[in-house]
Formats: sequence, structure tokens, C-alpha cells
Amino acid sequence: VTDAAAAEPGPVRRRADAERNIAAILDAAISCLSERPQATMADIARAAGVGRVTLYGHFPSREALVTAALDRAVAEVVATSDAVAAGMPPDAPADDVLRQFIRSSWDVLDRHRRLFTVAQRLLPPDHLRARHGPALTDVDTLIARGRAEGRFRTDLSVAWLATVVYGLFHAAAEAVNAGELDQTDAPAVLEATLLPLLATPTRRAPSSSEGP
Amino acid sequence: VTDAAAAEPGPVRRRADAERNIAAILDAAISCLSERPQATMADIARAAGVGRVTLYGHFPSREALVTAALDRAVAEVVATSDAVAAGMPPDAPADDVLRQFIRSSWDVLDRHRRLFTVAQRLLPPDHLRARHGPALTDVDTLIARGRAEGRFRTDLSVAWLATVVYGLFHAAAEAVNAGELDQTDAPAVLEATLLPLLATPTRRAPSSSEGP
Repeated sequence: VTDAAAAEPGPVRRRADAERNIAAILDAAISCLSERPQATMADIARAAGVGRVTLYGHFPSREALVTAALDRAVAEVVATSDAVAAGMPPDAPADDVLRQFIRSSWDVLDRHRRLFTVAQRLLPPDHLRARHGPALTDVDTLIARGRAEGRFRTDLSVAWLATVVYGLFHAAAEAVNAGELDQTDAPAVLEATLLPLLATPTRRAPSSSEGP
Repeated sequence: VTDAAAAEPGPVRRRADAERNIAAILDAAISCLSERPQATMADIARAAGVGRVTLYGHFPSREALVTAALDRAVAEVVATSDAVAAGMPPDAPADDVLRQFIRSSWDVLDRHRRLFTVAQRLLPPDHLRARHGPALTDVDTLIARGRAEGRFRTDLSVAWLATVVYGLFHAAAEAVNAGELDQTDAPAVLEATLLPLLATPTRRAPSSSEGP
């Protein structure tokens, strides 16, 4: 994984080298920026074991590199939540699926907390939100499913409820960064925050009597 | 309001001039940055009717200026919510006070939506959050009051619930910026989102019968 390729490599070999370099650069970007948000392009090239020419050939700016690293983290959220959904019965209630989604997505987000902070300062909020599109589509689908089941409220738009889920995941990540929330408590806190908010307002809590 | 002061002004006169200049600069910063987040220090000096020397004398960097403008907006939220609280009966239930707080704070936040976006890209999230301290103290007090009344939940910390209020106000502001939420709908949407989330989980909705 260096700039000096073997003499006259074929196109297949060149493409495989490029893919290996890109993967090494994104791994290095995520780990360097998570450790130290001020990490430079030169630091990241060094950690990836590639030259600056190779790095800038794939990612012409810090913004392009951070965007690609963010896209990879979002793809990981989607892959993890797809795997979780595949492991659950197809008729599992939406709130159970949401609980699992919170746990699996938090794991991924927790590993990328500082990357998000870096991205937040580099990218405008609408751009940042747009890069989360694939994960937000999963949230939209889950909310629509809960509404169809009568479990989730229909008085607020799916788009707003998805924004709330997105906003509170990142609020939890910031609270962990600030030392105000323990990262192992975050999934339970998110679950306790999001489920009553999403629940159909008129649905009564299951309870055998009126008394306290 | 110019760099050329009258010959040998006394200290009182100089202080009054400085205060007028600072107020004019902050007004100009808020209106310029709200219209165009890329507005430069020179644009802001021009709009305030002061010279660059005066501007940089009070605010040595864009970051210092945006921080001061943010502090002024937060002070306005606090002043407005104090005025609202003073106009309510002292025994008003915390959820009624929260409804009024949402309406009055949204008005102020709505006028400063783009300033917040600018601040979000200039300041680290913990710094940004710390500048909201005075408004967050009001939220903490209100949540503690609702808990003492038995209306608000006690299974999550006051700090986390205040973070949620803060996060969702700003999520609403971003949704308005993105054209996904109408700014006149935002207070009702925030109320419908926050009240069920804050309510004591075991408290039953007031209802005369068990029926649907």
C-alpha cells in the first residue's frame, strides 16, 4: 500500500490497489479523527501508510475525506440494523424492532462520536443530515410500520419523528463526549426517551387497575 | 458612532460610546449573519456604521463576535421566559409553564436560527452548549418543578431531559431552515413532542372512561 506501484500493473490490479488504499485511508481517518479531531491530512496519510499524492488523489480535501468516512459509518449503521431486522420474527412489533435498532445503531455511533463532531464543524447541517439519508430511511420505515400497527402516533409527521430520533441519537453522543452521560447507559436512556415520545397518545399503558 | 471620537471625551462619554458601538455591532452581526451566513467582519462593520478598528477593538475575531451575538440571543430567551413566568399564577402547573416557555423561546430562537447555524460551525459543541447555560438553567428549574409536582418523570436525569429540550428546539430550527417544518407550526410540534416525553410514565391521561 504505497505510491510506488509495481511496473505496469493491469487495470484489475490497479483497481484492487486503489480499493485497498481507500479502505486503509478511511480506517485511518476514522481512528485518527476519533482520537484527535485536529488530525491533519498528513497525519492520516501516515497512519494509512500511503503517500500524500495517493491520499489527495482519492480525497482532494479534508471535507471530501470526512464526508466519505461519515458515509462509511452510516453504511455500517444500515448494515447492522438490516442484520438485526433479519434476525427478528417478521411480525415483531415495531417498538421491539426500535429497541434493537437503538442498541445496534448506538454501538456504531458510539465508535464514531468524534467523527460526527468533526463533520458537524466541516459540513452545513443540511449536508450532514443528507449524508445520514440511508439510516434515516430505515428510521422512516420503522416509524411507518409502527403507525400501521397502531403503536406509534400519527399526529406528527414521519419526517419530524425521524428528525427527533436523529437529533436525540446525536444529543446522546454529545452528552457522552461532554462526560454527562455514560456511554453504556446511552441505549437505555434513548429507549426510555424515544418510546413514550413515539407511542400513540391515546393508547393506555397495559395495567390491570386504575390505582397507583 | 464612528472611530473619530470628539477631542478628549471624558470616561463616562467614552464608555457610553463604546456601549452604543457594541450594541450596534451585535445588532448588525445578528441581522447580517441571519441573512447571509458568509457575511464578513467588514460587512458587519459597514452595517453597524463603525470602522474596522472599532469592530476589532471590541471583537478581535469572528468567533468572539458570534459568541457575543449568541450570548445576547440567549439573554433574550431568558428575559422573555422570565417575563412569561412573571405573568403566570405562581401555582401554575409546570406543563402549562412549559407550554408558554416553548412559545416564547421559539419566537426568539426563530429570529436567530441562522445565527445558531453559523455558531455551530465556529464553536465546538460543548462550548456552544455552555453559552446556552442561562436558558438551560431555566429549563432545569422548570423540569425540577414538574418533578416536584409529580407531573414530570424522575427515571431520567434533569440534565438529560434539559439536553433533550435543547436538542429538539435546535432540531426544529434546522427543520425550518431545511424547509421541512413551517416556522409557525414549530411551537405546537415542539409541545406535542416534549410533553409526552417529559410526562411521568405511570400518570394516566385524564379521561372519564376506559373506552377508546
